[in-house]
Amino acid sequence: MDEKTISAPLINGSQTNDSEAEIDFDILPTLIGYHLRRAQISVFNDFVKMMSELQITPGQFGVALLINANPGLTQSALARAVGIERSTMVAVIDALESRSLVERRPSPVDRRSYALILSEQGKQLIEKLKPMVATHEDRIASNLSDEERAQLISLLCKVAD
Amino acid sequence: MDEKTISAPLINGSQTNDSEAEIDFDILPTLIGYHLRRAQISVFNDFVKMMSELQITPGQFGVALLINANPGLTQSALARAVGIERSTMVAVIDALESRSLVERRPSPVDRRSYALILSEQGKQLIEKLKPMVATHEDRIASNLSDEERAQLISLLCKVAD
Repeated sequence: MDEKTISAPLINGSQTNDSEAEIDFDILPTLIGYHLRRAQISVFNDFVKMMSELQITPGQFGVALLINANPGLTQSALARAVGIERSTMVAVIDALESRSLVERRPSPVDRRSYALILSEQGKQLIEKLKPMVATHEDRIASNLSDEERAQLISLLCKVAD
Repeated sequence: MDEKTISAPLINGSQTNDSEAEIDFDILPTLIGYHLRRAQISVFNDFVKMMSELQITPGQFGVALLINANPGLTQSALARAVGIERSTMVAVIDALESRSLVERRPSPVDRRSYALILSEQGKQLIEKLKPMVATHEDRIASNLSDEERAQLISLLCKVAD
């Protein structure tokens, strides 16, 4: 925003680039990885902005939702289900526990892990979030037809597998 | 891996869930955000694993590639082009500079920013990485036809915009 876009003197024989319009993206626009990342940043930012009052990230929502649907799930099983590192999962649970949304109980099946349940407050938050997430999803899919939306999910599954 | 999958006693009246097969994902599978994140984690992990010897992340590759194609670009213009926070960009540049891949020069157009160029070593790394990235892309797209690959990129653009 605060950058000048006038043409600039030479650095090392190349003209400086200071305007987005002039930027050469090289092979980036041909890469699935690049577009995935861009879409993901855009979706993440919209989610966080929409939930700013409730201070919840997509990752925290996903984890709380799974605990709600599967009370007693262990941290390790949850990490595997979501496909993230166990250490990352511990950080997410820590954040939810510090806000009294999630409770850790000793696991009856695995002494090295915790069984997780949502507090009453956590359950209420999930109920409040569900319609907000639906609105967020409709917004990020606003350029897509219903068919394209289903197509995108199907293609993303093929990449993730 | 080290979890027991036998059925377990009750916690709070609900059966504990310890096997992925038993997990109820609630509304997650209907959410674009969830599938984007899963695909992105999968692609990121494949990239990092493939480049483990070269110790480079997708973000670092993207930034180095853009600097290579646009010598003299400022940090701020780069952050806007990639769509990430300026502070995150500074961290990426710091990492590249500490490995002598990128050099910061005073910007002739903006005294509050730096003009960026790749070192000779940085340029060599980009040339080495390009075919590796192509292989990585083919692998993550191995379940997709050429048409589906183009379709996915087109749909992701619609979400990002």
